[in-house]
Amino acid sequence: MKFEIMRDWLLEGLNDVMKAISQKVANPILTGVKIEVNDKGLTMTGSDSDITICTFIPVEEDGEQIIRVIESGSIILQAKVFSEIVRKLPTNDVTIEVENGMQTHIQSGKSEFHLIGSNSDDYPVLPNVKDEYRFSLPSDLMKSLIKETVFAVSQQETRPILTGVHWETNEEKLVCVATDSHRLARREIVPENMPESPFSVVIPGKSLQELNKILPDNADVVEIVIADQQVLFKSRNVLFYSRLLEGNYPDTSRLIPSEYKTTVQVNGRQLLQAIDRASLLARDERNNIVRFSADGGKAIEVSSNSPEVGKVEELIEAIDVTGEDLKISFSAKYMMDALKAIDGQDIAIHFTGAMRPFILTSMENDLILQLILPVRTF
Amino acid sequence: MKFEIMRDWLLEGLNDVMKAISQKVANPILTGVKIEVNDKGLTMTGSDSDITICTFIPVEEDGEQIIRVIESGSIILQAKVFSEIVRKLPTNDVTIEVENGMQTHIQSGKSEFHLIGSNSDDYPVLPNVKDEYRFSLPSDLMKSLIKETVFAVSQQETRPILTGVHWETNEEKLVCVATDSHRLARREIVPENMPESPFSVVIPGKSLQELNKILPDNADVVEIVIADQQVLFKSRNVLFYSRLLEGNYPDTSRLIPSEYKTTVQVNGRQLLQAIDRASLLARDERNNIVRFSADGGKAIEVSSNSPEVGKVEELIEAIDVTGEDLKISFSAKYMMDALKAIDGQDIAIHFTGAMRPFILTSMENDLILQLILPVRTF
Repeated sequence: MKFEIMRDWLLEGLNDVMKAISQKVANPILTGVKIEVNDKGLTMTGSDSDITICTFIPVEEDGEQIIRVIESGSIILQAKVFSEIVRKLPTNDVTIEVENGMQTHIQSGKSEFHLIGSNSDDYPVLPNVKDEYRFSLPSDLMKSLIKETVFAVSQQETRPILTGVHWETNEEKLVCVATDSHRLARREIVPENMPESPFSVVIPGKSLQELNKILPDNADVVEIVIADQQVLFKSRNVLFYSRLLEGNYPDTSRLIPSEYKTTVQVNGRQLLQAIDRASLLARDERNNIVRFSADGGKAIEVSSNSPEVGKVEELIEAIDVTGEDLKISFSAKYMMDALKAIDGQDIAIHFTGAMRPFILTSMENDLILQLILPVRTF
Repeated sequence: MKFEIMRDWLLEGLNDVMKAISQKVANPILTGVKIEVNDKGLTMTGSDSDITICTFIPVEEDGEQIIRVIESGSIILQAKVFSEIVRKLPTNDVTIEVENGMQTHIQSGKSEFHLIGSNSDDYPVLPNVKDEYRFSLPSDLMKSLIKETVFAVSQQETRPILTGVHWETNEEKLVCVATDSHRLARREIVPENMPESPFSVVIPGKSLQELNKILPDNADVVEIVIADQQVLFKSRNVLFYSRLLEGNYPDTSRLIPSEYKTTVQVNGRQLLQAIDRASLLARDERNNIVRFSADGGKAIEVSSNSPEVGKVEELIEAIDVTGEDLKISFSAKYMMDALKAIDGQDIAIHFTGAMRPFILTSMENDLILQLILPVRTF
């Protein structure tokens, strides 16, 4: 194997692949990155066995030569040291050559590195994703979808299925739900080319977070291929595989109230900042509880108190308040997470009483829903 | 006590004072910030008993009113929660009022915080710095002086005196030295108004690091007042007190060689980058050792190897090499620290043999000297 490549391209591809590579893996070969070069280009693969990422760098793009392949071949190199070396090479021209089987030379300017590689035959084969369900979404919409749901997955392994986000078809819609049993985030979307037969899968939250880091913030198409135990996200030069979680996701639809006693319409950013301030004096209480009350007028009050430190009250001018008077307490963190997911738009909060779950929706589109369970304090 | 103040000024002063405040202090009163207001302005004080910082905000500056004092007074507030509150206040206008002794109200826009303060009489009195030695330096020169020496102090408490930087007069010069007994950094300076009688003090490295964060990067004058057990740095609106370390600093002048067998002149930045790359493959060895060799020609070689991972060699074009051939090994970290202190200029490295300390000096000024002890590997 021998090829010349532009460092900046190599580094960009490597940065993506590194997101799948962990030093804590049972199989030591997975601390390495697999490098394969042929007359089409360079493919790099990294995996922690849950997530596998492949990036491809073509020999040439838009008439610019990126790689000059002198001899095809493949090798596995220690990912951590290889990526540090690439980052610090002195020039943008890099030659990588494998001699005598495993001796790998990386040369740039007057620097010459010699690494001992491993046989690429020892690398696990890629998951075999049978083409069962396939549809596509723009990359930026896919990123929103992830950000609006993934924060609500459970961080605890006691119910492993809740550490994932449930993706399910409902007629022509894709419905994505995450819950840790104290709050729930739901986002609906209508892809252009949904598969006809319905599916229901649970994608690990961690996989979606890593995918979000790799996807570009533009309208490039991401193809989604769902198979029995794997999901594959294909973007221009990156393949992102994740295993699916096994088990049945609970039916969450019956948690969501459909009749309301009090509805408050308010600017999401104003409310977020007020809750953030109130949480400063709720620090020491369990779960960071703040109080919220609406009574008659259009001003709502957010407050909290910490017996040892002090208390805070703040009035917020609502856009509209309808229905019964209300006093309710909830986790400042859950409320702030939900408000950040709706992202600064005007919102409606629908309550069904102080001890019942309440929901937040965007007043601009009805595809986002956040649900929070209150806490008993009043 | 009651006053109105612009939040941005309050926050800036508070950020400086917070650098002295720690949550790990024996005296719980020191987790608070002392606030005093009178018709001249607002003074805030924070201390961890080693370092004490006072900032002053005047009632008015350049014709702009910053504070409106309604009633003089003083209070101690929990520093962490108070600074978080100030950072998150909704408007730039803040009113702070103390009622019934300790009840403190902080009001901005429609937010109202109520904190329980402590009696300011309980706050320790400021160190009494008798005006023994006094001189001054521009703030930016003071910052350079700190950065060029403080990294070399010992991180271990086995010889506490080495955790400080030694400041000593030598005729009209101020000589600053730090060493951890493996390497040494020395910076000389000629202040305009040195006191006539000589002094020798050891300032804790940690104090100088905090001072460096507070000093502005401009030519404003910093006055230095040295007393028996304290040093005081006075800049425009900040007083920074530090205790001095007790004990005798070792005589380091005899460590510094004055005759050389090999001298290499090289660009500091080029050498720094080459050492950084070489250190990638020295990771696993004790102390991160790289090798350096000069033999005859003007190219010097930097190399390292790690038996399990691989090796690296790099040639660097020197400006000049004179004297005997040389092979020497040293800590990549110490070398990089020294080169960063000299900061990218052309440098001269003077060697007296593979097992003797060597020194680095800037070719542009002779006031900076770095010394490193080599390691036996060749």
